[in-house]
Amino acid sequence: MRIARFTDGAEPTFGVVEGSVERGEATVAALTPHPFGPFTFTGVRRPLGEVRLLAPVLPSKVLAVGKNYADHVKEMGGDIPPERPILFLKPSTAVAGPGDPIVHPDPTSRMDYEGELAIVISRLCREVPEERAMSVVLGFTCANDVTMREQQSADGQWTRAKGHDTFCPLGPWIETDLDPSDAGIRTTLDGEVRQRGTTAALIHSVPKLIAYMSAAMTLLPGDVLLTGTPAGVGPMRPGQTVAVTVDGIGTLTNPVTAR
Amino acid sequence: MRIARFTDGAEPTFGVVEGSVERGEATVAALTPHPFGPFTFTGVRRPLGEVRLLAPVLPSKVLAVGKNYADHVKEMGGDIPPERPILFLKPSTAVAGPGDPIVHPDPTSRMDYEGELAIVISRLCREVPEERAMSVVLGFTCANDVTMREQQSADGQWTRAKGHDTFCPLGPWIETDLDPSDAGIRTTLDGEVRQRGTTAALIHSVPKLIAYMSAAMTLLPGDVLLTGTPAGVGPMRPGQTVAVTVDGIGTLTNPVTAR
Repeated sequence: MRIARFTDGAEPTFGVVEGSVERGEATVAALTPHPFGPFTFTGVRRPLGEVRLLAPVLPSKVLAVGKNYADHVKEMGGDIPPERPILFLKPSTAVAGPGDPIVHPDPTSRMDYEGELAIVISRLCREVPEERAMSVVLGFTCANDVTMREQQSADGQWTRAKGHDTFCPLGPWIETDLDPSDAGIRTTLDGEVRQRGTTAALIHSVPKLIAYMSAAMTLLPGDVLLTGTPAGVGPMRPGQTVAVTVDGIGTLTNPVTAR
Repeated sequence: MRIARFTDGAEPTFGVVEGSVERGEATVAALTPHPFGPFTFTGVRRPLGEVRLLAPVLPSKVLAVGKNYADHVKEMGGDIPPERPILFLKPSTAVAGPGDPIVHPDPTSRMDYEGELAIVISRLCREVPEERAMSVVLGFTCANDVTMREQQSADGQWTRAKGHDTFCPLGPWIETDLDPSDAGIRTTLDGEVRQRGTTAALIHSVPKLIAYMSAAMTLLPGDVLLTGTPAGVGPMRPGQTVAVTVDGIGTLTNPVTAR
């Protein structure tokens, strides 16, 4: 099931996307009240092309992991991957939706794409054992962990470099049926493939990340966990378009603009 | 004006604390709907001693600064303070109220108090110039930036070490009339003074921090900005009681418990 958040001019609403997106036949059926518990359909159904998709969730926090693909650790100049996941937070104010611009805060400085698989949490939980990790997952979406590369190294702490407004595009929707153990992931810039990987190469798997992160802090319904980026990160400039595809989910596309 | 959040068994409510706390004569007058815009009093007034104070605000984010007092930079083994503020985030799930226990996640490892002045933001804002910074401030409260010291150095990123549940006590209330340019700050452990400083020693002042932080990301009503801790940080053990006092605000007291 594909759960989206959309607006047709009125209040943002959750809905289920049905039918073929590729053939232009997809529709979205509005649901109420939200997908984190029992819900019903309102009866409103709209062609997907006639609504505006929003970030599929408004997370209370975006908890992310650094250096979780060995090939990316290497390209960043590291030798051995960290033994434990390195956690960092992106603020909720960084979240953007499909099609929303990624706003470059300082075009004299390097701003990178980092395509990632994102986990959407379904319910309040803490200290979730690895074996039960999938029971707290609503589904998965695509994310771009946008990063000011020079700020990242200058500050040491990654919060500012990764925390600017629009630096966490999410979407296009939440796929509830994905197997996250081997999903292909690609990032393109103006249509050219820049990152290509599979979640089979994650150093810390999705269940391990959920166990580790929920041991560090309580997770809430709608919280988003980012799983790390494969090799191939690089800069984006205003006027370009970046797209993150996870096989089995879909494609998250965002234009880059100057402030 | 002292703005508190409290419960007398029913729904949490904002209120204004009036009268002398020291003489046991203080009351809290409930207000509606919230203190981030025009509000009215409901007519309900209770003796302060008969209600339970809660964290005075539920922030969407807690944005904090590291190494903002020269004496603390020195005690942490640094030589020169960083040129720019070093930003990090604490998750909203870390927030605790006055009197709430600080829960030690691993008593074999060192958990430190860090007493701080906290800024509470009144309205959505970004790129606030230093000269207008005070216009986005609702008021100030006391905070304890609780930190797992060994996790902090092991991870490099500070998120996990500072992000555990209960690691951001706030309170006892928001003082709207404080002058933050020279407020005395003290942290005591079981009544013994461990940290003593003044915000006059902040490397980056309150207005400078607001300008810098709001240039990095949008701030929302209720967001909390932590201003850094003076020298004297040290470990707390279950069974102890820690208290952070900022002159002109009051005292935030929390017991320490084992998980």
